[in-house]
Amino acid sequence: MDEARIGVTGLAVMGRNLARNLARHGHAVAVHNRTPSRTEALVREFGDEGVFVPAERPEDFVASLERPRRLVIMVKAGAPTDAVIEEFAPLLEPGDMIVDGGNAHFADTRRREAALRERGLHFVGAGISGGEEGALHGPSIMPGGSAESYEALGPLLEDIAADVDGTPCCVHVGPDGAGHFVKMVHNGIEYADMQLIAESYDLLRHAAGLSPAEIAEVFRTWNTGRLESYLIEITAEVLAHTDAATGRPFVDVVLDQAEQKGTGRWTVQTALDLGVPVGGIAEAVFARSVSGHAALREAAQGLPGPARSRVKESGFADAVEKALYASKIVAYAQGFHQIQAGSAEYGWDIDPGAMATIWRGGCIIRARFLDRIRAAYEADPRTPTLLTDDHFAEALGGAQDAWREVVATAARLGIPAPGFSTALSYYDSLRAERLPAALTQGQRDFFGAHTYRRTDRDGSFHTLWGGDRSETPA
Amino acid sequence: MDEARIGVTGLAVMGRNLARNLARHGHAVAVHNRTPSRTEALVREFGDEGVFVPAERPEDFVASLERPRRLVIMVKAGAPTDAVIEEFAPLLEPGDMIVDGGNAHFADTRRREAALRERGLHFVGAGISGGEEGALHGPSIMPGGSAESYEALGPLLEDIAADVDGTPCCVHVGPDGAGHFVKMVHNGIEYADMQLIAESYDLLRHAAGLSPAEIAEVFRTWNTGRLESYLIEITAEVLAHTDAATGRPFVDVVLDQAEQKGTGRWTVQTALDLGVPVGGIAEAVFARSVSGHAALREAAQGLPGPARSRVKESGFADAVEKALYASKIVAYAQGFHQIQAGSAEYGWDIDPGAMATIWRGGCIIRARFLDRIRAAYEADPRTPTLLTDDHFAEALGGAQDAWREVVATAARLGIPAPGFSTALSYYDSLRAERLPAALTQGQRDFFGAHTYRRTDRDGSFHTLWGGDRSETPA
Repeated sequence: MDEARIGVTGLAVMGRNLARNLARHGHAVAVHNRTPSRTEALVREFGDEGVFVPAERPEDFVASLERPRRLVIMVKAGAPTDAVIEEFAPLLEPGDMIVDGGNAHFADTRRREAALRERGLHFVGAGISGGEEGALHGPSIMPGGSAESYEALGPLLEDIAADVDGTPCCVHVGPDGAGHFVKMVHNGIEYADMQLIAESYDLLRHAAGLSPAEIAEVFRTWNTGRLESYLIEITAEVLAHTDAATGRPFVDVVLDQAEQKGTGRWTVQTALDLGVPVGGIAEAVFARSVSGHAALREAAQGLPGPARSRVKESGFADAVEKALYASKIVAYAQGFHQIQAGSAEYGWDIDPGAMATIWRGGCIIRARFLDRIRAAYEADPRTPTLLTDDHFAEALGGAQDAWREVVATAARLGIPAPGFSTALSYYDSLRAERLPAALTQGQRDFFGAHTYRRTDRDGSFHTLWGGDRSETPA
Repeated sequence: MDEARIGVTGLAVMGRNLARNLARHGHAVAVHNRTPSRTEALVREFGDEGVFVPAERPEDFVASLERPRRLVIMVKAGAPTDAVIEEFAPLLEPGDMIVDGGNAHFADTRRREAALRERGLHFVGAGISGGEEGALHGPSIMPGGSAESYEALGPLLEDIAADVDGTPCCVHVGPDGAGHFVKMVHNGIEYADMQLIAESYDLLRHAAGLSPAEIAEVFRTWNTGRLESYLIEITAEVLAHTDAATGRPFVDVVLDQAEQKGTGRWTVQTALDLGVPVGGIAEAVFARSVSGHAALREAAQGLPGPARSRVKESGFADAVEKALYASKIVAYAQGFHQIQAGSAEYGWDIDPGAMATIWRGGCIIRARFLDRIRAAYEADPRTPTLLTDDHFAEALGGAQDAWREVVATAARLGIPAPGFSTALSYYDSLRAERLPAALTQGQRDFFGAHTYRRTDRDGSFHTLWGGDRSETPA
């Protein structure tokens, strides 16, 4: 019976494509779905791509797996995942592995891992990025869980992952929830990246007055340089597309209300718990949220804007490219800061350079840029921020004048650029010799006796604001 | 035995001052503390201010209260609050009330209210703002819980609350967690307000080159106009203060690392769950967080800044006043949006105008400004955003040119202004006819088949990006 190397249950598009990917790589794969018709359809349509071992009953599905069993569940995050775990865990034996390939919250993964460890089972929360195409042709895979489970699982996952320069886009991230944590931050960075692209488009459209087709050309050009990436590439595709029904630019017939599925929000909420400033991701989440508040937008249509609405300067597109690149460096630096903070908080010992390495292919944010991040961590594995890496610092220095002008232009012309602006503020905050936080501390001591520290000696102090304003040690 | 109208347990500074405030208003107040020495000290030092009924044992404390009993707990949020509730609840009888006057998370308050309701007790989560001085002289009080409990408690709380034009700064906010929710958002708004003040100071200091004493004068002047508020007033006090030890401006000897206690973070996390964009509060929380990352700041000291660092224009302080006022309108509009969204989510039926009314006195953000917000909701109780209120829209229109120039100047001079910038971006996003969210939706459909809606007809659609790029209904 133990004829399959690995099993996949949950055969919606992601699960189906992952199973096909495994089969295409020569791994006999057991397949199961709550509704058997999906299992049958998979075998009927794609049965010639490799060895599929279909099963209707969970017991037969489990029995068809070689030991230790590798069981991948590809179902909706939340209660459905818990239900499927409870369905299969009793059928497994010590040493067997359950892999959750969905978009679970890392806190749920930590809870599930601990519970299954008690029962002698390995639980691997694996972030899988790249959408349905990635699942079929090679995703970026971020598996957490025990090192022991990775020994048994890693070779198969590395086999089906994307490959960049001979290196698979899959690596053991760290214990328990580390994989889903890193996948969450990946998605948060993706939000920030998309927001910066949206602002670039908006400025080229409304400040420079270019058409979507012209802007598509700008993005195509950018995709031959340091911004080369999947997201820039598809931006050009989307902008160049014409709506067949109306003959208008596709981007002009799409309702301008962006949706979101929650991982961006989780990233910001978690960053707040960790005390990591992630303005780039937060502004991206808020920008989507603003766009969806139709009633507020409708009400605000009459609010006054500036008199001027166009730039005259030539070279504006180049300036936007610099603002985009600099802001992108900041957004990624913030995301990697969050990964390092999460790793420290939960004792995961994550190698940030390895994360950049496995994001170079397979996933939505794949880009030449990530090789630069990999190199930065190779040069200094303990750097507190990517901003100070030689390459990035030089790029920021070269971009800053244009970046400042683009932010200033957006403000003056009334074009929202929250992503560019927060990135620049973060940059200027970090490099500031003094911050007005000293005033904030003074106010807090004034109204709440929260005390303050001094620049010239240790200890905490309180000024008797309501009295003679002398200072007392706290 | 039932000689006290109300009891306070937990006699640290907040609890002690609240008890004194009650006693001063002629209410016999039972007092209790885990360590009896605090109870004794209170009676010894302030016994002549009114009638205190001290008790060492919880049983005696409870027995000294008239029925239905009103028991206020003033202990640390979290586990200590649960412990005290568990200590006293078994001693109470159906219809009695426990009031939590601490800074609990509203989700905890909802949980506790439901649990105590099961046991026949009322649980009132009451936000109390104003710090120790407010607790003694008249705080702003935001009590949640049942309407029935407010009937018994309201008159006492309104008696000791601050008073503005004959109206007490206390009102029944709504059921279960409503009071602590509103207090949380109040604190979030306070973060945003303080950040905007910090940026104003920073710009006057580093862009205009004014000294702290000169800036104190600017704030004093502002405090005679539309910005009149407690926070502006104490900003002038803090900036005018000279450090006795060094003879230097106080603000220059304070370590510029701002601290936070968590309610700002909670506000943003909750706003994210509710889908409410609160960039002003988020950037304030992040700014404090950036300031505290000493290692990152140290590493980033060498990063290049702009060549120019000073403005030449006269009238810069006036421009900053306008930027501050406009950004403040936005930050408060976002906070009130969150209150309305929370009210809708949890069925609290909160009157936002009443919140503005009770924040006019007693609390940290007390200001003339809040009367404007009260008036805005009086004029249109259902307004989706304060920005469109006649007064605020006119103020924004009058401020916007200066606001834009201040944001542009900060960007060009390398002075971080995340609060001003995010407020302006929000304003420009809301009033934009079209947002680049349409591009975002196109990208999401391209890489994840997430579908999009159209401007010209109902339904969801998907473009076959990998195929002939025709459109299919989803």
